[in-house]
Amino acid sequence: MENKVIAIAYEDVTDENGEFPLLKPQSIIAGKGGFIAALNFMQRIHGGKGILLSRVDGVRTPEITIIGAGNSGTAAAELAAAFGNKVTILDISSEQFGKARKVLPANVELLYSNRANIEMCLKRTDVLINCILWPKWRKDHLITREMLKLMKEGALIVDVACDEAGAIETTKATSHDDPVYIVDGITHYCVDNIPSAFSQTATTTLCNATLPYLLEIANKGVKRALIENKYLRRGLTTYEGKLTLEETGLKQNRPYISPEEALGM
Amino acid sequence: MENKVIAIAYEDVTDENGEFPLLKPQSIIAGKGGFIAALNFMQRIHGGKGILLSRVDGVRTPEITIIGAGNSGTAAAELAAAFGNKVTILDISSEQFGKARKVLPANVELLYSNRANIEMCLKRTDVLINCILWPKWRKDHLITREMLKLMKEGALIVDVACDEAGAIETTKATSHDDPVYIVDGITHYCVDNIPSAFSQTATTTLCNATLPYLLEIANKGVKRALIENKYLRRGLTTYEGKLTLEETGLKQNRPYISPEEALGM
Amino acid sequence: MENKVIAIAYEDVTDENGEFPLLKPQSIIAGKGGFIAALNFMQRIHGGKGILLSRVDGVRTPEITIIGAGNSGTAAAELAAAFGNKVTILDISSEQFGKARKVLPANVELLYSNRANIEMCLKRTDVLINCILWPKWRKDHLITREMLKLMKEGALIVDVACDEAGAIETTKATSHDDPVYIVDGITHYCVDNIPSAFSQTATTTLCNATLPYLLEIANKGVKRALIENKYLRRGLTTYEGKLTLEETGLKQNRPYISPEEALGM
Amino acid sequence: MENKVIAIAYEDVTDENGEFPLLKPQSIIAGKGGFIAALNFMQRIHGGKGILLSRVDGVRTPEITIIGAGNSGTAAAELAAAFGNKVTILDISSEQFGKARKVLPANVELLYSNRANIEMCLKRTDVLINCILWPKWRKDHLITREMLKLMKEGALIVDVACDEAGAIETTKATSHDDPVYIVDGITHYCVDNIPSAFSQTATTTLCNATLPYLLEIANKGVKRALIENKYLRRGLTTYEGKLTLEETGLKQNRPYISPEEALGM
Amino acid sequence: MENKVIAIAYEDVTDENGEFPLLKPQSIIAGKGGFIAALNFMQRIHGGKGILLSRVDGVRTPEITIIGAGNSGTAAAELAAAFGNKVTILDISSEQFGKARKVLPANVELLYSNRANIEMCLKRTDVLINCILWPKWRKDHLITREMLKLMKEGALIVDVACDEAGAIETTKATSHDDPVYIVDGITHYCVDNIPSAFSQTATTTLCNATLPYLLEIANKGVKRALIENKYLRRGLTTYEGKLTLEETGLKQNRPYISPEEALGM
Amino acid sequence: MENKVIAIAYEDVTDENGEFPLLKPQSIIAGKGGFIAALNFMQRIHGGKGILLSRVDGVRTPEITIIGAGNSGTAAAELAAAFGNKVTILDISSEQFGKARKVLPANVELLYSNRANIEMCLKRTDVLINCILWPKWRKDHLITREMLKLMKEGALIVDVACDEAGAIETTKATSHDDPVYIVDGITHYCVDNIPSAFSQTATTTLCNATLPYLLEIANKGVKRALIENKYLRRGLTTYEGKLTLEETGLKQNRPYISPEEALGM
Repeated sequence: MENKVIAIAYEDVTDENGEFPLLKPQSIIAGKGGFIAALNFMQRIHGGKGILLSRVDGVRTPEITIIGAGNSGTAAAELAAAFGNKVTILDISSEQFGKARKVLPANVELLYSNRANIEMCLKRTDVLINCILWPKWRKDHLITREMLKLMKEGALIVDVACDEAGAIETTKATSHDDPVYIVDGITHYCVDNIPSAFSQTATTTLCNATLPYLLEIANKGVKRALIENKYLRRGLTTYEGKLTLEETGLKQNRPYISPEEALGM
Repeated sequence: MENKVIAIAYEDVTDENGEFPLLKPQSIIAGKGGFIAALNFMQRIHGGKGILLSRVDGVRTPEITIIGAGNSGTAAAELAAAFGNKVTILDISSEQFGKARKVLPANVELLYSNRANIEMCLKRTDVLINCILWPKWRKDHLITREMLKLMKEGALIVDVACDEAGAIETTKATSHDDPVYIVDGITHYCVDNIPSAFSQTATTTLCNATLPYLLEIANKGVKRALIENKYLRRGLTTYEGKLTLEETGLKQNRPYISPEEALGM
Repeated sequence: MENKVIAIAYEDVTDENGEFPLLKPQSIIAGKGGFIAALNFMQRIHGGKGILLSRVDGVRTPEITIIGAGNSGTAAAELAAAFGNKVTILDISSEQFGKARKVLPANVELLYSNRANIEMCLKRTDVLINCILWPKWRKDHLITREMLKLMKEGALIVDVACDEAGAIETTKATSHDDPVYIVDGITHYCVDNIPSAFSQTATTTLCNATLPYLLEIANKGVKRALIENKYLRRGLTTYEGKLTLEETGLKQNRPYISPEEALGM
Repeated sequence: MENKVIAIAYEDVTDENGEFPLLKPQSIIAGKGGFIAALNFMQRIHGGKGILLSRVDGVRTPEITIIGAGNSGTAAAELAAAFGNKVTILDISSEQFGKARKVLPANVELLYSNRANIEMCLKRTDVLINCILWPKWRKDHLITREMLKLMKEGALIVDVACDEAGAIETTKATSHDDPVYIVDGITHYCVDNIPSAFSQTATTTLCNATLPYLLEIANKGVKRALIENKYLRRGLTTYEGKLTLEETGLKQNRPYISPEEALGM
Repeated sequence: MENKVIAIAYEDVTDENGEFPLLKPQSIIAGKGGFIAALNFMQRIHGGKGILLSRVDGVRTPEITIIGAGNSGTAAAELAAAFGNKVTILDISSEQFGKARKVLPANVELLYSNRANIEMCLKRTDVLINCILWPKWRKDHLITREMLKLMKEGALIVDVACDEAGAIETTKATSHDDPVYIVDGITHYCVDNIPSAFSQTATTTLCNATLPYLLEIANKGVKRALIENKYLRRGLTTYEGKLTLEETGLKQNRPYISPEEALGM
Repeated sequence: MENKVIAIAYEDVTDENGEFPLLKPQSIIAGKGGFIAALNFMQRIHGGKGILLSRVDGVRTPEITIIGAGNSGTAAAELAAAFGNKVTILDISSEQFGKARKVLPANVELLYSNRANIEMCLKRTDVLINCILWPKWRKDHLITREMLKLMKEGALIVDVACDEAGAIETTKATSHDDPVYIVDGITHYCVDNIPSAFSQTATTTLCNATLPYLLEIANKGVKRALIENKYLRRGLTTYEGKLTLEETGLKQNRPYISPEEALGM
């Protein structure tokens, strides 16, 4: 603020559909990385049950349950299904089901997320991958510690969303150096920066997404770009020493002004 | 025998791989018809639980277990999977798995048939389709009446093979007029001539398979055809008033002679 | 009205795309059920020609014509194609073709619906499945009784939309108890409540679609829910003793008021 | 013969399944080239009807009939189906159907070849591709000149097998310089060396197939290679001034000896 | 203008998504035709290298690079991939990638278009198909003459967009009569009216797209149709002797008035 | 030998096609495990380049080269292709290509293995997976240390076959504890017992394959089983204190007798 940096937050830039084009690439890589982590931590050499998460004729096909049909969940499901596992995605939105269906193979089950269905899945699943962010204000959990008892011994939870005490009560963030811990016989993988393992791929896809904004800023100057492009402007966080926030109406008594005010629009 | 009819049995003619080219078309139609019967008798209007045997996003995907990875079982699995159900085929032959895999979609599970796997399937399945013939001399059963208790209430058994007291202990043959009965809460469909429902298709495909033999008989005369074509000869049952049987060596003390003897070869 | 019931009609609630989220699940089940009915009534044991509606190598592949590329038509096509039939969907909307193409396999033909194409299809088809609602004010028909003469003897019409004297001139609604009748050699299946055969599946999917609205009503109270959610409000039919109707401007001189007026907005 | 050349004919070398490994690559390229020729000669600029042989939503999908489910026919069908056409292969062998099915997509129709089915196809088809060799001794034809009248005006016949007065009565061999002619309104493409258009691809694949035999000859010397490898020996045509022919027993009174005799085995 | 013709330009009518429904069918046919041209001009008999643009096991799979992921590029990629080639589409829009992904098979590579990626593709590719229109005001090129040196000898450029001195510096429009020329060892195919080769298909699909507008004009009269349908109105070019142009605000000092003014709205 | 153990070697039991039914399951798991190892060791956190081995739109698709189209190679290719990578299998056998083609998706390239093709692949590939056993008597290598210079910096070699100084000159066997080492900038993963990571899956599939032989031995007694089943007998290694070996004719002067002799047949 002192140096009057103009800061634009990646996570607040939207597109015309209200989606987050600068977050989507990382969500996809995180979801894919989540399944790849499961491939590893089910191996005997990494402390798992020694199950190959891939259809092998004659052997019971592994079952994978994914919570959330958004970008991460769909990406995790895509890889899990590609290896021939039985995959179920739980969600509560018919609209998300419709979007996911268009990019997933026919054999991914999209199932309404309610208590009965969650419990049925917990009993069967070899791996549970959580891909929904949990609202910070919620005190309850989707999967409580109690519910871990329903799971098979040696089952694995991969928490891609990785909210501590969020959707999964027993989640605590871990790092690539020490990625897993066990609670009540269930292994938890809760690395909170999965994409860093795939640094080159993540950087390239993030640059692809960022470049159009950079070009607009380079061509027009930052001020005009912010004025003319309302989606970019949504990401504005500091401008000439002022904190800015979209929707300031909802957050009065805070030291924010709207991006439009800051830009003198 | 009095009229000296020359009889060749469809079910005994083999090809060079030891398969039965004149039975295969009916086996395929029987297997497909078995799944179509399941589609019907799971409907509420036909006394079933009102389950549509097809993936519907948001709803639990129905599960279908098929016993036997031969022609019938593979054909039933092909249709059941095409409708988006979760399909498991149980068999004990890796070789059959290999053949079935080439024509089935990736999401059909091929599972080794042992007690643990059968019981796991019985607990989950909405429909069980039996496609293996049971040796006449066996007194035991693959699915005993006791094991029906493992199944969900309202589950359906379709016995395509339809051996009374065979693989399924509780099977009794029924007809298209009165096709189902209930034992211990499990509906049984045991029509022993499924292909007759698809008479036109069955006739055409059977004629396609039979025609090469007819042409050979028409061109050469029946005696020369039988002498020159050992696969056709295997089907010879009566010839000029004599009963004939391949492998008479195993069945001494019976009034059979070998086809070769009958033909004076 | 006397009891001041607050009634919200399923068939009038829309989503932000102008589609009907509470009707869509039933349309899908009706379309799928329509093809399953065709599977049955082409069987010899149910009075049909004995044709198995599934590709059998060596035998002519059955042809299925579907009128309308909406939810029902697409669902019927999905199953008919999954069984390996040759499927043609007739429609007049390029936009519908675009939507249908994304969920259908490549071998479903999407064909512009005009007289020449309809007649070509009638001559070839084994089964005609009608999935378009016919405007009540239209006196003409898409398929007249005269045009039935173009069809093969023993062909089957399944009228999923089931408007009497609608798109199909010869349609009269039937019930699951007595589902078919014959006109000029063509079998007609016109059950007007196909989803009831699949009661469990239909109930589950309908509940999935309804639940978000119920939760909103439960959380906010019905009045605030109706005021804040304009899509729900479109379904309002009676409110505190008053008949309401969206678009009252078009229907003056009737005893309706708009939902907004009724709610005092 | 004078120079005592040792000649081994490509077209007579078999493998252990009785197939011709040195002919197969050319057959595949000829079949693919046959469909590519059809793509061209249906274009308006090359005198055709101006039909794009590829599914275009809204437009009638083109129909392609292929005679023969061997290597050429299957290859032609693979490409024709890949472009989204409706493809029917006619053959009389269930065994060929089984082989073709494993490599073709589900929407290729495999149909028993009899008069009724051929006529049905001739009436509908936009392109007929012939891929069966016709026995030299047969005087009849599969498609007579009379039968061309059944075809649509402007339809195209591509004769990949290209036997003059063979399966197609009206076939006369043409060259790449002047590839088509018209008989009774039907365009005929009968280039008898299709693979030469794809010289680089054809050469590479032929070398791949030939190399193992060359290596064996180089390593062992030609005589020992011929003695030890009975499949190679079947191709022996001249050896040290003698004409050789397998199965000389059937062709007595000719100046041939068997390869084994020639080699002094 | 003298005759007061009412002219509506196909290329200016939009739909509600800002796309051009009357151009799209031709773009698709042009893209498909572009790949079909490549199939031809890689043949030895047409002066090419004799490469069959289709996967042949054992032979290097041909590589096809397509510039632009719009309607033409996607259609070209669809066919090129269907024949089993390795296909890369270059584009700079993540949104276009998302749309293209839904209709393309998984093995088409969608690659961000930058100098490094273009050069990598030029070195590898057998065929380059350009499907992007180049802004008339740009003086630079995407592929300069200098860059042709990166390509393999005998490679082929198909310029579907066919802007002279546009995206491809060396493009000059050609005709179906004399379609190709060579620059620096690289064959160029730059026919500027590819769809005319497929006249029947193109006409049908164009009529399908046009018919709804014709019906609206026929039912309402042209003036009312233009007033009520703003998408149709965007195409208005002359009306009662006046030149009209949408967005006249940007083009002052020209003899245009807006369509709305012309219609007296 | 002292204890007169009857030993039957898994790796010598064949089936009627000359394949090794008791080795095949491990080969498949080794091949799949090889690709999973590549997934890991390309990650930045495990010392790799940070490349996600999965298609991500906008990013260059990773390239995987697999040597050998047998059971291991095909299994590795199946998973690598399922994740959307560009996969090339090098082999010299058209017959292996034919078998592999039936189980692999269309976008796996099967390429004849010669020096030119190997070098082209080495230059491009991100990962090289070796799946061919190298004859013990060969002193040369398929990939010499010199050839590593052709590869990209940071590329990865996974040697599933893991013959020291075999197909890959620079291979030295490693263990799961310390799996990788670097030679000339190329990472090598040469764990010689990959399936042990997937112990549960490997055990189950191995038991499935073994069970029929165990049952035969249990039912008949070991001597009769060995006498009646020539495939099992091929695996006999010691019998009543004698070393046995099939094909003793080729290995004279050794203390072996044939299994048949040992059994007194």
